[in-house]
Amino acid sequence: MVDNRTATSRVLLPEPTLQRLPWYLSYVSSLRGRQVEYVSSTQISKELNVDASQIAKDLSFLNIRGKTRIGYEVAQLEKELQDFLGFKKAHAAVMIGVGSLGAALIQDSGLSRYGLNIVAGFDIDPRVIDTPHSGVPVFNISEMNMRIPQLKAEIGIIAVPADQAQQVADAAITAGIKALWNFTPCRIRTAPDIVIQDTSMYSHLALIYNRLDTQAASSR
Amino acid sequence: MVDNRTATSRVLLPEPTLQRLPWYLSYVSSLRGRQVEYVSSTQISKELNVDASQIAKDLSFLNIRGKTRIGYEVAQLEKELQDFLGFKKAHAAVMIGVGSLGAALIQDSGLSRYGLNIVAGFDIDPRVIDTPHSGVPVFNISEMNMRIPQLKAEIGIIAVPADQAQQVADAAITAGIKALWNFTPCRIRTAPDIVIQDTSMYSHLALIYNRLDTQAASSR
Repeated sequence: MVDNRTATSRVLLPEPTLQRLPWYLSYVSSLRGRQVEYVSSTQISKELNVDASQIAKDLSFLNIRGKTRIGYEVAQLEKELQDFLGFKKAHAAVMIGVGSLGAALIQDSGLSRYGLNIVAGFDIDPRVIDTPHSGVPVFNISEMNMRIPQLKAEIGIIAVPADQAQQVADAAITAGIKALWNFTPCRIRTAPDIVIQDTSMYSHLALIYNRLDTQAASSR
Repeated sequence: MVDNRTATSRVLLPEPTLQRLPWYLSYVSSLRGRQVEYVSSTQISKELNVDASQIAKDLSFLNIRGKTRIGYEVAQLEKELQDFLGFKKAHAAVMIGVGSLGAALIQDSGLSRYGLNIVAGFDIDPRVIDTPHSGVPVFNISEMNMRIPQLKAEIGIIAVPADQAQQVADAAITAGIKALWNFTPCRIRTAPDIVIQDTSMYSHLALIYNRLDTQAASSR
């Protein structure tokens, strides 16, 4: 059988699949912690409330096959998922904006366990510049053009005030950043070859508040 | 004209609308910062790359009307969006899991500006319990049943290791929590009257890595 890992990992995966794969990883990791050796897609399906045929389809992107009546080997499935999702490889990233949220994210060691290596921060505030945060150096934002290529960083995390997001995004891209992880509520526009991922914490809060209100109204 | 604010704020808004409203808010806030007085949906459309008719439709949920040829009054639109999204009202929340990410989120003052008031943390680690984080008290997780009703908290933020997420979610709901904001990659299952919002940072990372890989492959 041909090893097609290199080919598959470059397939543009559907977003819902990429959303579900970390669920499977989380579940098989907990199974491995409990010394479980095999798991079937039916079991995963029951636990995660995802259709079993969908799980088989999602996992078909990976370089792994389940065995009839036994299922997937837990340790192997965990490793394949981690490799496939890129969590085992270090990806150099810079934090643009080392305010409250930026500093908090630098401090979160969970991100590095998922392959995100924050190698530097950038800010405009002289009180923040030149003071390392959790061991990560913080530079003046005007130095992005010089520093980002040196640091070989491809990912820029945007955690500035929303009205500065577009401007720092443009500067980061000029400096060589290829992907933006945007934590601001600003809609950043870029050339189509730049990867943009929004993590809209405030939209999620708005959703929670709205759902709570409607639940409260309907239970009256 | 009848004031229908109370009615509209209890409408179960479509998720895409709730996603876009914070974009509009972010944009009109920046306009107000620049002393701009009026904005049309065409302008918002151009800036945010959202269809103008979609914007008019989204804003129709609010208690505001644009004026022909002038558009929306910026200050009023900002206020209506903040009120409508619930960002001006304090919502009591507890942080369940005060590890790396939990502590980081408590530290992020941005959340309180969007109406999230984290009133307490819960953990199982004796080194964390009883030591306030950024002024927020941290209790033993076994005290949730007693503390959560006292604190009148309706929102529980889940930031524990993924394999403990379901268990602490169940305990939080028993203690009176009505909405869970889940930062773990675990799929939490609850009764349908509980609001669940996942913020899947690790899924977003997986998306970024996958998109970067495919971009790199296609540009070769």
